[in-house]
Amino acid sequence: MEKIRRLNLVNSVSGFKSANLIGTGDNFGNLNLAIFSSVIHLGSNPPLLGFIIRPTTVKRHTYDNIKNTRYYTINHIHEEIVEQAHQTSAKYPSGISEFEATGLNSESWMGYPAPFLKESFIKIGMKYEEEYEIKANGTRLIVGRIIELRFPEHILQKNGTLLLSKTGTVAISGLNSYYRTNRLIQLKYARP
Amino acid sequence: MEKIRRLNLVNSVSGFKSANLIGTGDNFGNLNLAIFSSVIHLGSNPPLLGFIIRPTTVKRHTYDNIKNTRYYTINHIHEEIVEQAHQTSAKYPSGISEFEATGLNSESWMGYPAPFLKESFIKIGMKYEEEYEIKANGTRLIVGRIIELRFPEHILQKNGTLLLSKTGTVAISGLNSYYRTNRLIQLKYARP
Repeated sequence: MEKIRRLNLVNSVSGFKSANLIGTGDNFGNLNLAIFSSVIHLGSNPPLLGFIIRPTTVKRHTYDNIKNTRYYTINHIHEEIVEQAHQTSAKYPSGISEFEATGLNSESWMGYPAPFLKESFIKIGMKYEEEYEIKANGTRLIVGRIIELRFPEHILQKNGTLLLSKTGTVAISGLNSYYRTNRLIQLKYARP
Repeated sequence: MEKIRRLNLVNSVSGFKSANLIGTGDNFGNLNLAIFSSVIHLGSNPPLLGFIIRPTTVKRHTYDNIKNTRYYTINHIHEEIVEQAHQTSAKYPSGISEFEATGLNSESWMGYPAPFLKESFIKIGMKYEEEYEIKANGTRLIVGRIIELRFPEHILQKNGTLLLSKTGTVAISGLNSYYRTNRLIQLKYARP
């Protein structure tokens, strides 16, 4: 199979993926914003999220910044910022921040050493915990702990779940398709 | 925060999750089917998918079967089988297969040592590659290679992407909310 078709096919077989922008900073105040479709839930107590980063054979600002500062942010992508979010995946020359290049705005929270995305409705402050290099292809699973969490109060349901369709959080399929979602059903804890 | 609310909250902050049923068998012909919302893309060449399995302090048939046979299947969940798929998460007594308990049907492919889900439209045959135990909470990342792949021809786009909304593949949020999706936009490879 031709390389690009294969890439698109394999990227779409796992099902829908989360759509997040990861914000980081270096020690000189330069800010970085990068789109990731691999953020996953790892556990609730302690509250842990993971994401996959590609081999570090080329310069990866997100990875370098996380290793240097130990902090990063995860910000949900919603319908109205899809195009700008996607544009962060372009390879900008060193020294150009994706915030400037895309017109998205950073937001700093008192004392928090990584930039949040102003336009996002669900924003998570993370602290680096550990990482695992996957031998089979050199990618890395980055494990972090949730330190801060902000979201609009009206999307919090009684049982604690955030109703993501209310903020227009999107899902990703493949490399570049963005999906809107509608809740079909909420089921109870299953018993035999 | 109360335990169940916290569980629901943390499970919903990562964004939308993939919805898959993992099929396995033991060496005596007993079949297992279990729902997972943590299947992720790890790489295209070789074609690798990962998923997260909880600590193995209690009996985990999926994990045991994969370790014994080295093979498993990943099957997309679509709108019409959401309730049966969710029901596989109930704790059935040992000896009862989730296929029988939920009314979902297994399908065997010539020579393939794990059961596929007949009702699924997108079915992936996997071979175990490696695993990583995440120190922070004892969960494991299971890494596997795609060996077989079947899907309806009409969902394959020219560029290789599968149009998942055509098969009604759902997305999961939190522990028990299922979402239908509609494609919003497909963007080009981003350049500065």
